[in-house]
Order: sequence, then C-alpha cells, then structure tokens
Amino acid sequence: MIGIFDSGVGGMTVARAVETLLPGNQIIYYGDLARTPYGSKSPEAIIEYSIANTEFLIEHGAGIIIIACNSAASVASDILRRKFAVPIFEVITPAVERAVSSTVSGNIGVIGTRATIRSTIYEQKIKQQAPEFRVFSKACPLLVPLVEEGWLNARETKMILRKYLTPLKHKQIDTLVLGCTHYPLLKDLIGHRMGKSRVRLIDSSIEVGLTLQKYLTAKPAIHETIQRGNENKYFVSDMTKAAAATAEQIFGRHIDLIKV
Amino acid sequence: MIGIFDSGVGGMTVARAVETLLPGNQIIYYGDLARTPYGSKSPEAIIEYSIANTEFLIEHGAGIIIIACNSAASVASDILRRKFAVPIFEVITPAVERAVSSTVSGNIGVIGTRATIRSTIYEQKIKQQAPEFRVFSKACPLLVPLVEEGWLNARETKMILRKYLTPLKHKQIDTLVLGCTHYPLLKDLIGHRMGKSRVRLIDSSIEVGLTLQKYLTAKPAIHETIQRGNENKYFVSDMTKAAAATAEQIFGRHIDLIKV
Repeated sequence: MIGIFDSGVGGMTVARAVETLLPGNQIIYYGDLARTPYGSKSPEAIIEYSIANTEFLIEHGAGIIIIACNSAASVASDILRRKFAVPIFEVITPAVERAVSSTVSGNIGVIGTRATIRSTIYEQKIKQQAPEFRVFSKACPLLVPLVEEGWLNARETKMILRKYLTPLKHKQIDTLVLGCTHYPLLKDLIGHRMGKSRVRLIDSSIEVGLTLQKYLTAKPAIHETIQRGNENKYFVSDMTKAAAATAEQIFGRHIDLIKV
Repeated sequence: MIGIFDSGVGGMTVARAVETLLPGNQIIYYGDLARTPYGSKSPEAIIEYSIANTEFLIEHGAGIIIIACNSAASVASDILRRKFAVPIFEVITPAVERAVSSTVSGNIGVIGTRATIRSTIYEQKIKQQAPEFRVFSKACPLLVPLVEEGWLNARETKMILRKYLTPLKHKQIDTLVLGCTHYPLLKDLIGHRMGKSRVRLIDSSIEVGLTLQKYLTAKPAIHETIQRGNENKYFVSDMTKAAAATAEQIFGRHIDLIKV
C-alpha cells in the first residue's frame, strides 16, 4: 500500500495524481483534520504529528510513505527518514527538480504557507542544485482558507492573488512552484495572474506522482512488496462537511472518509 | 484565579476586558494553539478539547472558568457545566442578553465562524428570550485568517467584509453580534460597513467581562475564594511568532507566552 498523509484533505491532490499515474496500487490516506492546519504550527508540533501519522500508516500496511503536506515535508522529512525503514517521498524535492530543470532565466518563485516559506526549504534545495539561481518566496496564508471557502473564482480571491503575486511578477520569474497542495485548485487564476505563456507553474502533487512512478518502475522488487488492490482508504482524524466537500471537489466524485 | 481558555490567542480580548473591568484579579489563560482553529472542527473534537482545557485551568488553580472561544461555547458549555463544579461563563449568553436589550427593530445580525453559525446557538438563545425577534446569521470564515495576516485595514479585508456583510445590511438589522473573539480587532471596519449610527455592534469580550463583574459583586464570598494577585499567566499548547504578535496587538504591550 502507498501511504499518504497530510494535515487535511488538500493532500488528496497527491492521492489523485498517484491514482492517475499508478493505477491498481492501493492507497491509504490519513488526513489530520483534528489538528489542521499545520502551516501555522511550530516545527516541534509538526514533527510530533508527522511521526504519529507515519506510524498510523505503517501499522495499517503502508510500504511507502508520501508526505503530502508541504509544512510537514519542510520540517519533518529528514527525521522521518531516520526513524522509519520504509521509503519516504515528499512533495518538495520532485517540485524542486522540475523547477530547476525547466527554468531558463534562473529566476524561480515559490509560494506556500507561512511555515513552509519560513523554513526556506525550497530555497535551500534549489540552491543546492543550482547555486547561481535566484529564488523569490512569498507566504500566502489566505489561499488555503479561500479554497476551503470555495471561492475558487471569486473577485476577492483574484484581488488577494494580485496582492500576493505582484511582487513575484516584478522579479521576472519564469517558473513558479505551487508549494502547497491546496494551490492546484487555484491553478487557472494563478496562471492568469502570472501570465500563462511567461511563467510555468510547478504542481507538486503531479511531480511527486511522477517521481514515485519512476522509482517503482526502476525497483520492481519493491513494487511487488507493495500490496496491490483498488480499495483505496481515506482516514481522517476529524470529520466535517467542509472537508468532505473539498475531497469531492478534488476527485470530482464522492469520497468515503473514515473517521479514526 | 479566573481561568480563561480559547482555541488560540483571540480569546485574549476577553482577558484584556477582564483585566480592565476587574483589576487585581489573577488571570490564568490557556490558548490551544496546537489544535487551533476550533471553528473548522467537529463538535465531538471541540468538546474533547474543551474538557481538557478546563481540567488544565482547574488543576492550575482556576476557581472560575470563562470559555472565550465561541465555537467551544456553542457546543461545549452545557457539558462543561455538568462535568465541573466551578462556575462557568462563556462569551455567548452575555452578548445575547445585550443584543436583546438593545435592539429596537427586533432585527439582530450575528457573524461568527462556520462552527458557531452552524450550531445556531445565538439564534436559539435570542429566540428563547424574544421569540418574535428575527435573527440573521452569516458565517465569515476568512475573517480570522485576515486578522492573523495582520490585514486590519487592507482593501482586501474591506472587500471581503462587504461581501459578508451586505446580505445582513439588506435585512435592516440595528444590532450586530460579533460572535468571534477575533472580530473586535475589525470593529472599525465592520462599523463603517454597517453604518455606525444605524447598527450597534455587540463585543462579546466586553459583555462577558461586565457579566463576571456583576456576578462577583453580588457574590463576595465567591470573590474571596478567587485568589487575588497581579501575576497573570498566559499558557499556550504551541508557540509561534504569529501568535505572539497577535497577543501583543490585542494588549498593546508584550505578553510572555508560556509553552506547555
């Protein structure tokens, strides 16, 4: 089973990408809705929650873990890799690799929650691969609540995006990393604001799915040990109508959430 | 000691009101930042957290409890009153009483988080006292993140307030309950939007302070048992820079937060 965890249901954009790119592999998802969002919590709290989430997924049969939450990936992935034996993927590295390979100008933008941006993880990882590149980051704490409000095409959302994105536009970036799993739901508005022909948007959910696909193709023995099946399971630590609605919006169909 | 709990630091508007109205009474505050916000959680989760928060405050010497979180007050106050022997106050009842006594037209508006509005607690309590009054409610889930972003006077905040408040304005309300402890920080903008001379804003933080003041004056024996002192203590279950900044904004001075 492929285990995926997130602070909420936003990480289901990763589950959807894995479902599309790796059909026939069973997914087990854990959304920590009881403590969502992670983006405003301290690194210590996020690390504690990430360990508990990983333990839950492994106990329930996961042989591979994907950290689908950027805030968790930015502060907890190294610790989880040291602590657990299973392969651990996260949404940051694949997005960084795609951004580095696709930029022409070397000016890369990154947007995310406050915790993700404050961690400077994207900047560090991009500079490791290409020290000469320039990284421009912007925390956008209102985008997750706007998505959860369902204002995916509202005038207010457009105005707030303008406020957040204009400083990045002035930096002449040609690549923008969507450093939060909720942001793909605003892809069209973000693309419109940045100029679709000028700026390439990197969707971390799709990139981690592609990375996992490549990994499992290269390691058929590991792929064998991951139990196959089609009964994907979506666990949540709290149940709300808003979460169920966002899950449905992401998949375009009804999703049974199981409260644990 | 007067124990006050909230899902975060917004409830410090209650602590500030108590400090002003009841000087010399020691306050012990607990902000559950590790699980903030409550507004998007299920009633079951909010009840569990509220019991734990009350136990913490009583163990640390609180002889009176104020539930400073509207979401917690709306779903957990009856349960807490049955479970604990100490007097329990909350931010909803005093605001309802003030609204009922101050309206002339009988058209009352209520704004709050999704959990508070969905609970219909304000509507129920107003109708208990005045069944003929009309209550118009509106969930405003973006206002807390806007306050936490510090956009207290931003154009985007004004636009979002217009979107949220225009339906209430059309209902000819003359009284508006600010059903969330963060909202007093937006009092000027809300007053401006609704028309300051036409609509009276009810600040639940001040109303609960006034109610407690009256209660302690009427019950000097209970007032005696509440330990006096000036060393107010502010405990939080997680520590972030944004929370410290909001606390400072509310009090207009530096506040030492103690992480437990």
